[in-house]
Order: sequence, then structure tokens, then C-alpha cells
Amino acid sequence: MKDETCAALIADLGMKARRAAKSLALADSAGKAGAVRAAAAAIRDEVDAIYAANKQDIADASALSDAMIDRLRLDPARIMAIADAADAIADLDDPVGEIIKSWNQPNGLSFERVRVPLGVVGIIYESRPNVTADAALLCLMAGNAAILRGGSEAVNSNRAIHAAILRGLDDAGLPADAMQLVPTQDRAAVGAMLRAVGLIDIIIPRGGKTLVARVQEEARVPVLAHLDGICHTYVHRAADLDMAKRIVLDAKMRRTGICGATETLLIDRAAVDIAPAIILALLEEGCEVRGDVAINGMDRRVKPARPEDWDTEYLEPIVSARLVDGLDDAIAHIARHGSHHTDAIITEDGAAAQRFLAEVDSAIVMHNASTQFADGGEFGFGAEIGIATGRLHARGPVALEGLTTYKTTICGTGQTRG
Amino acid sequence: MKDETCAALIADLGMKARRAAKSLALADSAGKAGAVRAAAAAIRDEVDAIYAANKQDIADASALSDAMIDRLRLDPARIMAIADAADAIADLDDPVGEIIKSWNQPNGLSFERVRVPLGVVGIIYESRPNVTADAALLCLMAGNAAILRGGSEAVNSNRAIHAAILRGLDDAGLPADAMQLVPTQDRAAVGAMLRAVGLIDIIIPRGGKTLVARVQEEARVPVLAHLDGICHTYVHRAADLDMAKRIVLDAKMRRTGICGATETLLIDRAAVDIAPAIILALLEEGCEVRGDVAINGMDRRVKPARPEDWDTEYLEPIVSARLVDGLDDAIAHIARHGSHHTDAIITEDGAAAQRFLAEVDSAIVMHNASTQFADGGEFGFGAEIGIATGRLHARGPVALEGLTTYKTTICGTGQTRG
Repeated sequence: MKDETCAALIADLGMKARRAAKSLALADSAGKAGAVRAAAAAIRDEVDAIYAANKQDIADASALSDAMIDRLRLDPARIMAIADAADAIADLDDPVGEIIKSWNQPNGLSFERVRVPLGVVGIIYESRPNVTADAALLCLMAGNAAILRGGSEAVNSNRAIHAAILRGLDDAGLPADAMQLVPTQDRAAVGAMLRAVGLIDIIIPRGGKTLVARVQEEARVPVLAHLDGICHTYVHRAADLDMAKRIVLDAKMRRTGICGATETLLIDRAAVDIAPAIILALLEEGCEVRGDVAINGMDRRVKPARPEDWDTEYLEPIVSARLVDGLDDAIAHIARHGSHHTDAIITEDGAAAQRFLAEVDSAIVMHNASTQFADGGEFGFGAEIGIATGRLHARGPVALEGLTTYKTTICGTGQTRG
Repeated sequence: MKDETCAALIADLGMKARRAAKSLALADSAGKAGAVRAAAAAIRDEVDAIYAANKQDIADASALSDAMIDRLRLDPARIMAIADAADAIADLDDPVGEIIKSWNQPNGLSFERVRVPLGVVGIIYESRPNVTADAALLCLMAGNAAILRGGSEAVNSNRAIHAAILRGLDDAGLPADAMQLVPTQDRAAVGAMLRAVGLIDIIIPRGGKTLVARVQEEARVPVLAHLDGICHTYVHRAADLDMAKRIVLDAKMRRTGICGATETLLIDRAAVDIAPAIILALLEEGCEVRGDVAINGMDRRVKPARPEDWDTEYLEPIVSARLVDGLDDAIAHIARHGSHHTDAIITEDGAAAQRFLAEVDSAIVMHNASTQFADGGEFGFGAEIGIATGRLHARGPVALEGLTTYKTTICGTGQTRG
């Protein structure tokens, strides 16, 4: 398909989504929750059709890696889990209409800052078909329309899930244009979405670094995303050894493939006597340790870290580790090598913790907790559409509230300014 | 200067600003307020030098229009007013460090959402030299570094004001790199700022539509701005005639050149009997009225509106005016022709007002008040760096709070996730 054809297609989708977004913005909480629940019910009803569509995708996917096939694969249990996740979204508090702040001016004008939906959200994702439901229904619950562009390897699964969502919208009396699946797998459609200023209000990429990098590079529409999760855990000299060991093991090893996994371990030189126990525990758990000279001396299994290790998001059971000369050195290392995602200090020294929390310039900064808590569910948001490391709009896990903006309403009694 | 030279220059400025931003982010309120007051004092001290520099700019500006020269011109009273405005900024409440929200999770983790500065703000402006102080010192008070690029016609004035600001920073012990004036008038420097992703966190253009359009078109860095202020005042059928007349006159005529001035007047067909009095009042005040057929019939001085009038921001004593068929038609007109800036309804009918406030998708929506209240000062913000009509981050007048973002701090007692 030519670029102009794709642009025209996206413009058409965008205008329809914009119209639907107007109805959604005015839908009440019960109406939106009802539509999300109806979509969940339709997904359960259509479990066989979705499973069959997914089997077709798997059959077509012989060229893919095992990891990709695992992300792509659905089974009836996974499909039911998608429906359950949708029901959980319907249970969340609706942020739209919340009065964030209200105040009066001496001239009698009364001001309210009211939460409103963002508008039209573009979701660009890869092989996980559950994103079709998870992301779309989070957008819906926050009163937004969504334009969904999934990976071509999941085309049949996405269509089947999307069909169920449309049934849900229809059952709830909401317009089908509110949740649109881009009908072509042409990559030019992604480019057209990224340039659709005025039609799409925000783009949320869900997938690997290559996808996110392309989106951030090409997009003219604002993007909510994180490129890297180079998260640090810093063991301060006043750390409790047992706590430090438990947290470091969890932060690195609980799940190594998530963006909140710790990639670099910083240990105070003044805590060097507790370092070997932590390094040993990581090695015993099967973690590869790439250390500076001091860490290298602690166990012969430690490999030497190369300069690029400090800037690497492994997403694997590998950690880079070095000694630092106290709090300032740790903060400086994080400022230089971090990705403004999530960083933690382990210490019993409250003043050191406060300085770390204040001075580390990341979306999420922690004291005595595992970086793996960087997650919308763990924040109590009930879900998340992604984690943002940009500085504007929303930072950290983004859920319903991050899918809204605000307007100011002013009520007067005839006030004029002149 | 070549593009690459400009890019290198801006990269150098940006890195210095980034370092300075780190100190500013940690400066306390008293320190920042002290620096802003010291800058105000230095502006007063240097009034003669600033006045002389401005006279040089005026002398060099023979090719400019009278309106531009008026924007460019300073005199001792105007310079003192710049210093007074700076003192007013120093009196504002510091938003940084504010705990926006705090909550706990059942596992004992305690969460705080804390306001932090945006980082490095790029200000691109035209001939008004007061922006050098106003914008820079608002950024400073919110803990941000600023990179300032003023119009070439104001180069001497801007340098003189900037020198005073640097004296203020120095007196207060803050780094000079926090407030940088781009040292070249080469237009390529503007392009380099717009592409300085990672060095500049946000661009705020201050000036006419051509400047804002160029910035929005070219910028890779997020932009906080409004392109148009096509503001509407809608006289509902349940409006009080006297109030409607007073508000419409103020909304259109108090100052016609500001973005919150009403450009289009919508009057209910059901209120057609009160329309002539409003139209007449506008004409008597010297406003040109461009009306639809019905408005045209009300006075022979009314000119016929052409289709493009409904999409025009006049910024002059001209108003487009038409009858609408009730609330829905008014809301539809605003959705089609508005610029999401500020729109008002005049009515005694509370239910109609509520629907208008809910359904009009603009940054500011008003009931029984003049659209000319679209102003940071009138909002009680004490100042404004601009008005934003984008959907993300900040909408409406942007002052100190809009120059901040947030991070989440999490405090635990050794929690792990696994």
C-alpha cells in the first residue's frame, strides 16, 4: 500500500475515532464499565474462535523464535485470563470527572480543574495478542477511543479479540468506531499513525526496544513510553545485610525480562565486607555477575565488566556490579548511566535515603524495596498500559489516570475584566 | 553559522544547562526566591544600561512596523515594571516538593507522588524584551534551567537584561549556566533547539502565529503552546440581556489583541429578540461585525460573514456572529471551528451551563464570564509563561505548576515481590 493510501486510511480511522471519542468522553462510569464487562463476556463467549485464530497464527509463524511464539501463543486459560483482566478494569475507579482542584478568586469567579479523557489513543504493539484487549479496554474505561495496530504475526488472534470487543461495545450501545483495529499489516500504516497530529492525541508503543526507538524517532504525535529500564539497586554502607541480599536477589532475579528488573548493583566501598555475601547469593541463583576489579576479586565466577555493561539493559540473569564511594558517587553513577526508570537504595540511614529519593531524577525512586515493584498493579492502579520515563504528562506506571488530561471550568455571575 | 555549528553550540549550552538544572532542582524555595529578587534588584540597578541598550535596538529597527517597535520599546518605567514582575514571581508559592498524592499498599510500601522541576526549558520569543526576565525567572522559581532565544531586533535589550539576571544569580550563589541566552542570532540556532531531544525538556514559544506554527511543525522536543485563540461566546436563550451585553463587549473589546479575546459570537435563535441590542452595542463600540443572514438584517453596518470568518482569529475589533439552533448547535459549531482555547456560555439556565461546561472540549470553558479571564494572573497563578491548548501535561494558563512534573517515591521496610 502506498504511503498516501495509508495516510488516507489512518485519517479516515482517526476521524471516526474522534467522533466516537466525543461520545465516550460523555459516557458515565457505569456505561463504560458495562461496555468493558460486555467485552469480557464476549471474549469468554468467543473463546473457541479466538483459540482457533491463534492456532492459525502459530501455524503461520514457523519462522519466529521460540520466545516470540511464546508471546504469541494463547490457550483457553490465557484467553479466560484476558477476560478476567477486562473485568478487573471495569472495577477500577473512573478518573473522568474528578475535580482535581477547585478554588475561587476575589472577584467571585469559581474555578474547577476537572479530569477529562485524552481523546484518541494509538496503540502500536508486537506479538502479544492480549494487548488488543488490555490496552483497548483501559483506554475505553478512561473514556478514550483507541486505534490499535498489532504485530502482523498476531493478525488472526487480534481480529478475533477485536471482534469480541466490538460485540461488547455493541451490547453496551457504544459506537464500534471507539475501538478500531488497523485493517492492514502494511508497515506504512504505523508511519501514518505516528504522523497523525490532530487525529491521534497520544501514541503508546508496547513492545521491544526496536519498536519503541522507531516510534520515538519518527513520531510527531506525543509518545508515552520508556525505551530502557536500566534500573539500579544501591547498597548503602548502612544497609542491613540480610535485607540487602533479599532485595537484590528479588530485584535482579524474580523476573529478569521486565523493565523494572535491576541491571546494575552499586555497593558502597564502606560496605565492602557485606558485598561478597550478596555477590555469592546472586551467583548461586544462577546470575552472571560482571564486576569491577573489586567485585572480581570476590569470586572466580565473576566476569570483568566492560564499559558498555554500565549502559546495558540485559533483561537476562546478568548483573553488572561495582563499588561506589558513597552516596554522591552512587547518585552520579545513576545520573550518568541510568534511564530515569526505577532506582533503589538499601539503607537503615534515613537521611541518606531522603537524599537519594530527592536527588535521583527517575520516574520511580525507592528505599528498601525491590525495583520489581515498578508496576501499575503494585502501585495499586489495578492495571497499567505501560511505564513512561519521559518528563511530561505521566511518569512511571500509566493506568487510567495517565490516560486522562484536564480542563478548567470557570463559573461566574457576569464578571467582566475591563 | 552552519547547522552543525549551531547544533554543537546548542548541545554545549544544553549540557551546561542540564548540570545547572540539577543544582536548581535541589535549591530550596528561599534560595530560588532570593535569586529572583536579586535579579529584580540587578534589573533596577542596571536600568540605565538596559534603557540605553533598548535605544540602540530601536535605532537599529527602522525597518520594523510601528506595532513591532511598540513591543520592542522599553523606557525606565517599563524596566521598573519588569523588576516588579520579578519580585511578584519571587512571592509565589514554590510548587517543587509538593506531595501531590500519597498512599500505602497492603504490603506496607508507602508511595508519594512528589512535584519536581521539568528540567531545561527552551524559550523562543520575538521582539518583547521583557520575556527575557519574565519567562526566565518563572522557570528559575520552579527550579528549571532556561535557554533563551529572543528576537534579533531585541538583541541589545535582551543582553542587557540577561546580564542583570546573571548578576542576580551570582549574588544568590546560583550557577550562571542556569539562565543562558543563545549568543547567536542565526536562525539555525532555533532549529537546533527544536531538535535538542534529551538536552531541552520542553520548548515554550512566545510570539505570533508564524513563530508558534514553525515551532510546532519542526520541534522534536515537546512544545507547550497555543497556535490560535478562536474563542467563542455563546448567548443562550436563557441569558440575561444586560449580562450578555456586558460580557460580550468585554470579551471582544476590552483588549482585542490577546488570545482570550472572543472572535465569534453565537446567539440562540430563540434569543433573537435580544440579539440586536448586543450587535448594536458592539457596533457602537467600534467593532466590525461580520454576520450571517439573520445578523445582517439587524443593522446595515453589519457585513456578511464569509466561510473563513468562522475559522479566523482576528485579534482586532472584528467579530463574526451567527444565530445557532440551541445548545447542541452551539457546541457543534465550537467543536468544528474552535481552537480548544477558551469558550463561554451566557445563560441563567444551570442545566444548560453544566452541559456546555462538560461537552465543550477546550482548555478553559466558562459560564457567565468574559473569555478575557483566560489568563494566569486572573486564575490566581500570579503570572503565566503562556497558555497551552495541547491535550497533554498542562492545559490553559501555564505558570509555576505547569513548569513542573512529578516522580513517585516508594519507601519500604525490605519488601520483595517474588
